[in-house]
Amino acid sequence: MRLIHRLTPAGPRAAALCSVDGVEHFVDLQQANPQLPATVDELLHNGAELLPMAAAAAASSRPERLGDAKLGPPVLAPQKILCVGLNYADHAAETGAVVGDEPVIFNKFPTALRGPGDAIELPPESEQVDFEAELVVAIGRACRRVSRGDALDCVAGYACGHDVSARDWQKGKPGKQWLLGKSFDSFAPLGPWLATRDEIAEPGNLPIQMRLNGQVMQQSNTNQLIFPIDYLVSYLSHVCTLLPGDLIYTGTPPGVGMARTPPVFMQPGDVAEVEIAGLGVLRNPVVAAANS
Amino acid sequence: MRLIHRLTPAGPRAAALCSVDGVEHFVDLQQANPQLPATVDELLHNGAELLPMAAAAAASSRPERLGDAKLGPPVLAPQKILCVGLNYADHAAETGAVVGDEPVIFNKFPTALRGPGDAIELPPESEQVDFEAELVVAIGRACRRVSRGDALDCVAGYACGHDVSARDWQKGKPGKQWLLGKSFDSFAPLGPWLATRDEIAEPGNLPIQMRLNGQVMQQSNTNQLIFPIDYLVSYLSHVCTLLPGDLIYTGTPPGVGMARTPPVFMQPGDVAEVEIAGLGVLRNPVVAAANS
Repeated sequence: MRLIHRLTPAGPRAAALCSVDGVEHFVDLQQANPQLPATVDELLHNGAELLPMAAAAAASSRPERLGDAKLGPPVLAPQKILCVGLNYADHAAETGAVVGDEPVIFNKFPTALRGPGDAIELPPESEQVDFEAELVVAIGRACRRVSRGDALDCVAGYACGHDVSARDWQKGKPGKQWLLGKSFDSFAPLGPWLATRDEIAEPGNLPIQMRLNGQVMQQSNTNQLIFPIDYLVSYLSHVCTLLPGDLIYTGTPPGVGMARTPPVFMQPGDVAEVEIAGLGVLRNPVVAAANS
Repeated sequence: MRLIHRLTPAGPRAAALCSVDGVEHFVDLQQANPQLPATVDELLHNGAELLPMAAAAAASSRPERLGDAKLGPPVLAPQKILCVGLNYADHAAETGAVVGDEPVIFNKFPTALRGPGDAIELPPESEQVDFEAELVVAIGRACRRVSRGDALDCVAGYACGHDVSARDWQKGKPGKQWLLGKSFDSFAPLGPWLATRDEIAEPGNLPIQMRLNGQVMQQSNTNQLIFPIDYLVSYLSHVCTLLPGDLIYTGTPPGVGMARTPPVFMQPGDVAEVEIAGLGVLRNPVVAAANS
C-alpha cells in the first residue's frame, strides 16, 4: 500500500494511492471503512491491527482520480526525526571521514517536516543550504532494546526524504552540534507516499537519486548503507523508545553540494527532487524565506 | 499559579497547587471550571486566553489535600526539548571551555521526560551517568523570529529540570553529537510544578542547587547564565518555530560529576534532587534499568 495524506478543507485524510490506466487515483481509507482513522499517523499508532484492514478497504473500493490534489507529508507529526550521518560507504569516502564502529546520530525537529510540493525555505540566517537525498524508515510499532532480528517487524514502511542542511550552522557553531543546521523550518521534506513494508522487497537494494533543476547531483544505491536498517532500528532502540510514526533518515550518498568544487548550494528558484525506486519522486521548490 | 499534573485512574489532570496552613493542597482546574481542559499541555496550547481563567478558577475553589498523590511532569508531551550547553559562567570556567559568541544547542527526545518521583534509569549501555541541575523554560505561545524584547511574552513559566547525561555516549561516540547521551529514556526529569511567569519576578536571579543523597554537588544562581532567557528564546526562534509546551533546559552550573576528582557518577540507590528558589524540589530516585 502507498499511503498518502490528501490535504482537504476538513483536514488531512489518509488515502491509498493506486494507478488506473497509468493515471494516479486514490481511495480515502476512512470513507472506504469508517472503522479506519482519518490520518496515517493514527493508522500507525494502531498499525499491527489496522494496516491489513486498510489494505482490504483500499482493494475493495472504487478509486477516485487524484488530479492535482495537494498532499501533506505521509506522516504528519512524528515524535522523533532521527538522522544518520555518513552512512553511505561512497559518501564517507567523498568527505574523507573515518567510518566508526557506530553510526553518527543526530536529529531534526518535527517543525522542519514538509510534504511533496512544499517550499524549502532558505533562511536569511544561512548562506550554505545543501541538499541530501535519503531513504526514510517509518516506525510502526513501539520498541525498546529490540534485537536486529526483530527490528524490521517494528518498521511500518519507507519513503523518500530530503535532509536539507545549513552547512554554516551544522559545521560552524560552538560545540559542533548539527541539530540547528538541520532543523530550520522546512528542512525535512518527506513523501510523496509511505510505502508499507510489504511493497519494498529489498529496502537495502534501492537506486536513489537527487536532482537539482533536473541535473543529477547524487546517484547511488541503498546497498551502500554502512549501517543497514535493521541495525539502525535496533541500535537506536537501545537508547530510547521508538514510537509509531518516528522517522529515521538513513543517510545520504555522495555528491552533496559542499563536497563539490566549487561548492553548490541551493538558490531561490531551484527545484529539488529525491527519487528512490518504488518510492516515487519527492519534488520541492526552493524559495527565500521571509525575514520575519 | 503552580501547575501540576495529578496522575489519576482517569489520566493526568491539570491542577493548581497551593499551601493551606503549610500543607500542600490542589484545585483540579477542569473540575473548578468545565471550560478548562484536562491537562496543562492543552492549557498552554491556548495559554494567552486560558491561563487567567485557570487562575480565577483556582482562586475561587476549595482546595483539596494533595496527600501522596502521584504527579507527572508538569508538561506531558513537548514537541521539543531544547538544551543549552555550557551556559553558566562558573561552569564554563570549570570545564575549561571557551565561551563562544552563540550558545551550544542540543536536545533530548520527549521519550526521556519524567515527573517528580519517577526513577532515573541507569542504562546498562553506559557507565558514566552524570547529573545536571537546570532551570527549565516552558513556551506558552508559538513564535518564529521573535525579538529579545518580545521573547518573554512567549514564555509560559518555569520549572526545575534535570539534564541527566551519559558522558561516555555524549563525548565518546563518532561525530561527537550529544543527542544520544542526553536522550536515554528517563534522562529528562521535570517538575514538581510549572510556575507561571507572574510567579517568578526575576528568573535571571534564582538560587539553584543539585543534591546527591543530600550532599550539595552544584550550587549557583541563574544570574550566572551567559545567554539569558530572552536571548535563548529569540535565538532559537530564528531557527525553528517554538510551540506551546516546548521546553528549554537552560544549562547547568559547576560541580557536575565528570569535573570532579575523582569523577562522581550516579549509582543505583542514589537520590537526586534539583532545587530552585520558587520552583520546589525535583526529587528522583536512581535505579538500574532492566536489561531488556
